[in-house]
Amino acid sequence: MSEAAQTLEGWFALHDFRTINWSAWKLASQDARRQAEDELRSFIGEWSATEDSKLGSTAVYSIVGQKADIIFMHLRETLEELNELETAFNKSAFAQFTTPVYSYVSVVELSNYMAKPGTDPSENPEIAARLKPILPKAAHICFYPMNKRREGNDNWYMLSMDDRRSMMRSHGMIGRSYAGKVKQIITGSVGFDKWEWGVTLFADDPIQFKKLVYEMRFDEVSARYGDFGDFYVGNLLDSDKLGKLLSI
Amino acid sequence: MSEAAQTLEGWFALHDFRTINWSAWKLASQDARRQAEDELRSFIGEWSATEDSKLGSTAVYSIVGQKADIIFMHLRETLEELNELETAFNKSAFAQFTTPVYSYVSVVELSNYMAKPGTDPSENPEIAARLKPILPKAAHICFYPMNKRREGNDNWYMLSMDDRRSMMRSHGMIGRSYAGKVKQIITGSVGFDKWEWGVTLFADDPIQFKKLVYEMRFDEVSARYGDFGDFYVGNLLDSDKLGKLLSI
Amino acid sequence: MSEAAQTLEGWFALHDFRTINWSAWKLASQDARRQAEDELRSFIGEWSATEDSKLGSTAVYSIVGQKADIIFMHLRETLEELNELETAFNKSAFAQFTTPVYSYVSVVELSNYMAKPGTDPSENPEIAARLKPILPKAAHICFYPMNKRREGNDNWYMLSMDDRRSMMRSHGMIGRSYAGKVKQIITGSVGFDKWEWGVTLFADDPIQFKKLVYEMRFDEVSARYGDFGDFYVGNLLDSDKLGKLLSI
Amino acid sequence: MSEAAQTLEGWFALHDFRTINWSAWKLASQDARRQAEDELRSFIGEWSATEDSKLGSTAVYSIVGQKADIIFMHLRETLEELNELETAFNKSAFAQFTTPVYSYVSVVELSNYMAKPGTDPSENPEIAARLKPILPKAAHICFYPMNKRREGNDNWYMLSMDDRRSMMRSHGMIGRSYAGKVKQIITGSVGFDKWEWGVTLFADDPIQFKKLVYEMRFDEVSARYGDFGDFYVGNLLDSDKLGKLLSI
Amino acid sequence: MSEAAQTLEGWFALHDFRTINWSAWKLASQDARRQAEDELRSFIGEWSATEDSKLGSTAVYSIVGQKADIIFMHLRETLEELNELETAFNKSAFAQFTTPVYSYVSVVELSNYMAKPGTDPSENPEIAARLKPILPKAAHICFYPMNKRREGNDNWYMLSMDDRRSMMRSHGMIGRSYAGKVKQIITGSVGFDKWEWGVTLFADDPIQFKKLVYEMRFDEVSARYGDFGDFYVGNLLDSDKLGKLLSI
Repeated sequence: MSEAAQTLEGWFALHDFRTINWSAWKLASQDARRQAEDELRSFIGEWSATEDSKLGSTAVYSIVGQKADIIFMHLRETLEELNELETAFNKSAFAQFTTPVYSYVSVVELSNYMAKPGTDPSENPEIAARLKPILPKAAHICFYPMNKRREGNDNWYMLSMDDRRSMMRSHGMIGRSYAGKVKQIITGSVGFDKWEWGVTLFADDPIQFKKLVYEMRFDEVSARYGDFGDFYVGNLLDSDKLGKLLSI
Repeated sequence: MSEAAQTLEGWFALHDFRTINWSAWKLASQDARRQAEDELRSFIGEWSATEDSKLGSTAVYSIVGQKADIIFMHLRETLEELNELETAFNKSAFAQFTTPVYSYVSVVELSNYMAKPGTDPSENPEIAARLKPILPKAAHICFYPMNKRREGNDNWYMLSMDDRRSMMRSHGMIGRSYAGKVKQIITGSVGFDKWEWGVTLFADDPIQFKKLVYEMRFDEVSARYGDFGDFYVGNLLDSDKLGKLLSI
Repeated sequence: MSEAAQTLEGWFALHDFRTINWSAWKLASQDARRQAEDELRSFIGEWSATEDSKLGSTAVYSIVGQKADIIFMHLRETLEELNELETAFNKSAFAQFTTPVYSYVSVVELSNYMAKPGTDPSENPEIAARLKPILPKAAHICFYPMNKRREGNDNWYMLSMDDRRSMMRSHGMIGRSYAGKVKQIITGSVGFDKWEWGVTLFADDPIQFKKLVYEMRFDEVSARYGDFGDFYVGNLLDSDKLGKLLSI
Repeated sequence: MSEAAQTLEGWFALHDFRTINWSAWKLASQDARRQAEDELRSFIGEWSATEDSKLGSTAVYSIVGQKADIIFMHLRETLEELNELETAFNKSAFAQFTTPVYSYVSVVELSNYMAKPGTDPSENPEIAARLKPILPKAAHICFYPMNKRREGNDNWYMLSMDDRRSMMRSHGMIGRSYAGKVKQIITGSVGFDKWEWGVTLFADDPIQFKKLVYEMRFDEVSARYGDFGDFYVGNLLDSDKLGKLLSI
Repeated sequence: MSEAAQTLEGWFALHDFRTINWSAWKLASQDARRQAEDELRSFIGEWSATEDSKLGSTAVYSIVGQKADIIFMHLRETLEELNELETAFNKSAFAQFTTPVYSYVSVVELSNYMAKPGTDPSENPEIAARLKPILPKAAHICFYPMNKRREGNDNWYMLSMDDRRSMMRSHGMIGRSYAGKVKQIITGSVGFDKWEWGVTLFADDPIQFKKLVYEMRFDEVSARYGDFGDFYVGNLLDSDKLGKLLSI
């Protein structure tokens, strides 16, 4: 039996991808659209207030391509809050013009492959902050879920802790070389959703997503042990852009 | 030919996942919604009476994310009762506001990898109780289906009984270390549904689901021999929360 | 090149799984429902008359869980008859209240891995009866499709006839140990549908499905060479139960 | 680098599978149905005239089971003609009563694994005829797509030309042993559709499809190197049967 | 750790596949159809003007078979422009008669496996032109996404740079032998979409797609290391053909 890495958990995360039913939106009266948009802006305002109170964080981006039109990424203290939040949104007028197309349930996670022996990472304020992160307002978002592979000779979970630690260190060094260019939030979903982890990246230059993920793919931990789900890429949806998106 | 482990079977199980059609629910009149909710509460009342009579058990939870809004997990003596129960629900007013999105048919199972030689486990009252369990009212539920792998050198069904017993013992020890934190119900679905087993976990702290499943994944029986389906996680839907969920 | 086993073919089979559109059924007038049910009962009457004439056989079961509400399993002399039968049903009033969710096209098959050398199995009246079986009216049905695996070192079709024969003999012995408890109909679907075989089991005690399939899974022919599709389990839908199922 | 076999290409092929929306068809007026059927018969007449002019060929069969009700298999000189043909059909009244459920785009192909050295197969009139075949009016059709496998040690595309030629010869000999019983049309879809080849079989006795495909499966070229998609089987839809299919 | 190849990125790409809802199109009034077609032609005109200004490029083709009726392939400087472009189209009258069926988000990419040492490819005007290509108006288009495989002994990302370079050289030589017959645009989608690359081919003779892809499949880089998604093939949709496509 191989030793499990210790993990620290922070805020729970809900990635909520939606498409807009453009035909219904066009058919609705100007009034109906304005009311729906106003209600959506109220929700965004509430989410922003929650963020200001350090009780959670929310990112709103448009998604490129047909897979989705919008993603709402929410971080909250509890699964109950996420559930209430999605139910409230589902009852909103704007939600009736959308179709849910994909969601992901996870929790912000730090693994202590890198922890210094003899320290208690949960007492480290920097770590505490990383467990309850305020999501960046970068120009672009990238999301994908992933597993560590368990196939034949490529079985991550049969490796020794030392082997895993050394590979994760190399992996982390690639990540760090993108510091200032790409901000990465790792959320764990073992026991919560279909894949083991969700990776959410933020950057002002979307080419950096490609450079980072591609470079990592040659790293043994991805090359031999990474299985990846679908990738979603999008653009920051600020107040102006939301108005443009919804204007008919 | 490898020797099959003996299993004991108890109540049949139906996991019934539903989404709520929010647009239809919003459009319905206040009266129509009240009648539908009243009828749903009658059903829940009947299920609760069945549980009080020790003739079955039912758990009702909301599910986080888009995969489902509600799960009804029913345990009953026979497949006929489960079938009647789902048909009665399908005819209810509330069901017309839901879409079935996933279900799982299985039976509560105990395998006697751990049985003491020379004893008849079915005569053990503790075992009899575990075969017909009253589902806990914990704050959270987690469900996932799984198979034992049969791939190349990782073929569970080609292992000797001794090898399987020793791996299951180690696996069980992890489970037991979560006693008091996570309650686990194993249901077998060989011959009944797509995967070989369903695992339903109950806990007051949902992080314990993650800790338990992650720790087990490093155990050889999961690392080399476990294939997992999708994971669903949710929150207890008591009478108050049901009212909140359905209020417009 | 490995030698193909000889097979004997009997009646063609159509497994036709349907869900009932409960909202439409509830919304229909009492009259419309009665007419639809009467027409369905006429169909069942005709299928029963065909069975009495030994020109085919039909089984009607309800299915537990969301995958389907009803299965009609039809055996007929020709693909044309199956096609006419499904078209006639598709035009019926009752069919308008159902959604087709899964079907399977195959033919009753006996492989002569077990044939006595020097005999012509097609002249054996017992074999002739097994090729055109009257489906049992057991309390429960179980259906699943399967393939023989062709992966790396686990390639059934590269084995010698002797190896396959000896494994099939062991497999058959498990089946025979369930005689009186489980009745098994094997249908071949090579060239007709997605998997190579369909397995339909009938039993009064559904736990016997689980015991049989689980025990066989440890047999090398399943452990190394069996790939299985989804499993469906259901309850006999006799005249009374059909009335209950459809009553609003 | 392994040497690619040379191939000859003939007519382009479109397999167009449709289900009939029986509820809409029943609800339509007798007049609307007659007009739709008349228009469909005009299309079939045009396709037949094209076939008489040796400018293409079309086969129309009903499909058994829920996957489809009808297949139109069209062979034409160019992709443009196939595209125009499907668009014209899509605009027809009858098409409004159907749902497209599956299609396949390919081109009639002969590989010259068997070519005599020193000859130019394209100058052989028999070969020219096989590249532009008039589809048989056999009682039954069978269609399935397939790939040559590229997995671990079972990688068709890494084999030498000699190994592939010798395996294809054995494969061809099985096919030839069904001469007079099964007519086979191979269409290549590399670059055009999801699989590498489509196989369309025609026979008066559908059991011959099963015998042929099953026997081939024990041949190394299928056993180790064949990956198969879904199988569709159907019955010739001549003018009378079309009338019966559509009559309410 | 294996060394990642350097890549150069140019214009972002959106492949946008749509089916036409023929029933709705037929039901619409002549006026509604004319307005929708006029608006679509305005969009095409704008896209063409963008191309004339060297600020992007757009290709419009019809697709053969049921997977899609039309593809719009757009190249633009930024993800924001692609997002605005698809939103504008989604709001158009014509879009209400279509269903989005598949899309792909990527970026024009040149890998410098072939770069001459000591040169800066980004300063090469030919390379700059290839990063911002004007899409050809060839008679036919072919699109497919692909991955480099990471399975057991066939793991592209564990190979040395030298091995990869030498295989890519052989691969490139096949491509070059089709110069003048097939124009190839490679777009990278690591971090953006489900597969690692998209391949878009243009040719006047569609058989050249088949020849090229088939020949490459015997090349080790494809045979052992290529995993391919679905293939789409289509015909140039110029102004006349668009009129024919949409005329009722």
